[in-house]
Amino acid sequence: MTVLFNRLALIGCGLIGSSIARAARKRRLVGTIVVADASESVRERVKALGLADVVTDDVAAAAGQADCVILCLPVGANAAVAAAIGPHLKAGAIVSDVGSVKAAVVRDVAPHLPVGVHFVPAHPVAGTEYSGPDAGFAELFDNRWSILTPPEGQDPSAIAAMTAFWRGLGANVEVMGAQHHDLVLAITSHVPHLIAYNLVGTAYDLETVVESEVITFSAGGFRDATRLAASDPTMWRDVFLNNREAVLEMVARFQEDLAALSRMIRWGDGEGLFDLFTRTRAVRRSIIASGQDTAAPNFGRSDGQAKSAD
Amino acid sequence: MTVLFNRLALIGCGLIGSSIARAARKRRLVGTIVVADASESVRERVKALGLADVVTDDVAAAAGQADCVILCLPVGANAAVAAAIGPHLKAGAIVSDVGSVKAAVVRDVAPHLPVGVHFVPAHPVAGTEYSGPDAGFAELFDNRWSILTPPEGQDPSAIAAMTAFWRGLGANVEVMGAQHHDLVLAITSHVPHLIAYNLVGTAYDLETVVESEVITFSAGGFRDATRLAASDPTMWRDVFLNNREAVLEMVARFQEDLAALSRMIRWGDGEGLFDLFTRTRAVRRSIIASGQDTAAPNFGRSDGQAKSAD
Repeated sequence: MTVLFNRLALIGCGLIGSSIARAARKRRLVGTIVVADASESVRERVKALGLADVVTDDVAAAAGQADCVILCLPVGANAAVAAAIGPHLKAGAIVSDVGSVKAAVVRDVAPHLPVGVHFVPAHPVAGTEYSGPDAGFAELFDNRWSILTPPEGQDPSAIAAMTAFWRGLGANVEVMGAQHHDLVLAITSHVPHLIAYNLVGTAYDLETVVESEVITFSAGGFRDATRLAASDPTMWRDVFLNNREAVLEMVARFQEDLAALSRMIRWGDGEGLFDLFTRTRAVRRSIIASGQDTAAPNFGRSDGQAKSAD
Repeated sequence: MTVLFNRLALIGCGLIGSSIARAARKRRLVGTIVVADASESVRERVKALGLADVVTDDVAAAAGQADCVILCLPVGANAAVAAAIGPHLKAGAIVSDVGSVKAAVVRDVAPHLPVGVHFVPAHPVAGTEYSGPDAGFAELFDNRWSILTPPEGQDPSAIAAMTAFWRGLGANVEVMGAQHHDLVLAITSHVPHLIAYNLVGTAYDLETVVESEVITFSAGGFRDATRLAASDPTMWRDVFLNNREAVLEMVARFQEDLAALSRMIRWGDGEGLFDLFTRTRAVRRSIIASGQDTAAPNFGRSDGQAKSAD
C-alpha cells in the first residue's frame, strides 16, 4: 500500500509504541520512523532491535519534522510532552496517542497544539501483560479495535488518514466521543483490571492461606486474574487516576451487585444464582462469535487443559 | 502400569467424569468402566463416544460391584446418590468424588456409607468453561493438582490407592483437611468465579453502554472474565451454596479491599495504586514458575495477540 506518512514520530516506545513501529515497517505504511524515549535503556533496546531509523531523547526534535506524531506514553505523561513539542510541530501535522482514556488526553494535549495541527486521539484496544520494546510484535493489532475520538471540528482528511493508518496496522476502526469511550472502556477494560489487581491483593494478604497454596491451586480460576494483575503498574495507575468518575461509577455498580450476590449465597437463593450464571454464559458466546476471543477451552492455553479431546 | 481397580463406577459423566473415563482407559488404570447417569441424552453420548463398558441409569447397580465408586456430580446431588448406593456397596470398596467443596461432601456422603467401605473425597483442580461428556479429554488432569481430603481414621491403603489413581490420571496429589481445602479454594477458585459472574452481570445490566459495545471492545480485559462466567451454572450454584461461610468471608475481604482501592482512586493516591500493582505482578511470575500457567502473552490465545514477536 502507499506510504501514509513520510515521517512518523513515536514518542515513547514500550509495548504499544514498539508494536506500531514493527507493524508500520512491516506493512510499509510510513517512510522514516523516528522514536523518542526518555529512557536510555529503552533507546538502547530500540536501536538493538532496529525498530526505528532515528532514535533520540529529544522529543521536540523528533516531533518537529514529523507528518504524524503519536504519543505512546502512560496518559499521565502526555501533558508535559505536548507542551514540549507543541511549538515545534509542522503546520498540517497530525498528533495522536494510544491512551486507554480519552477525555483526559484531550484535556491535557489539545491546549498545547497550535492552529493548523490536527488532533486525532486513538486507543487501540489491544495489549498483553508484558511491557517494554521487547514485548511488542507486529500482529498485536490484528483484528483488534482502535477507537478514534477526534474533538469537534477536526479536519475529516486527518481523521481519514488515521483511520487508514490503523487499518493498515491490522485493526478495525471505530469513531466515538471521548466521554463515551471512557464509559465503555471503564467496564470492558478498566474495572476488569481493577478487580483483578484487587483479587490478587486480597489473596496476597490472607493469613489463613499461605501464598504457596494460592500459587499451587491457582488453576481453579485465580490464575486468570493474575495475568491482568501483572499489567504495567505505571500505565494502570494513570488510567485509574484519569478515568476516575467512570471507573468509580462502574465499581459502585459492581459492588452493589456483588453485595446482592453475597446475600443470595447467605440466604440460599439457588434459583437467583442459577439465573445469573445462565445469563452470563450467553455473553461469552457473543464474544467468540464476534471474533474477539478464541473458543478453545482455557483460551487454548499451552498446558494439559489446552490439548484437544481424544 | 498395573490395574488399580478391576471395576470403576463413575456416577455422573460430564466434563470431569468423562475425562476420568478417557484418561483411566487411555492409561489402562482400571478394568471395567461403568457409567451411571440420570440423563438419557448424556447416556446416549457416553455410548456414542465409547467411554464406558457399561452404561446405566441405575446408580445402585452401577455402584454395587465396583471396587471404586467416584461421584462426578454437582455437589448438591451427592447426598441423594450416596443414600441410594450406600446399602449396595461392596465391603472394601472405595467411595470418592470430584466436588469443588469438601466439608459439605463429607457431611452429605459419609453418613450413608456402611462400615467397611472407605471414603476418600477428592477434588481435581482442573476444568474448562465447557460442560458435558463431549467436553472431556484425557489430558485434562495433566500437571494439575488433585486434593484428597480423607476424614480422620481412613485406611491408609485406600488413601494410597486413590493417590496412585490420580497420579495415574496425570495429576499431582496433595492431602489436606476438608475445612482448609474449602478456605484455600474459596480464594483460588470460588471467589474468582463469583466476581467474574458478577462483573459480566454488571456489564449486562448497564443502560449507558450497549451490549454490542461490551462485546466489541472486550479485548481490553473483560473477555477474560467472560470465560469463567461461562462455566456450568448448576455446578457453581452448588459450590457457592455449599461453601457459604468461606466464600462470604473471602468476598467480604475482597469488598473491603476494593472499597479502599476505590478511595485511593477518588483521592488520587497514585503511590498507593502503584505499590499494589507492583506487588501483584510478582504473583503472576510465581504461578508461571510453578508450571500452573503459560508465560505466553494473553495465555498464548490463538488470535493476533498470541503470535510471537517478529
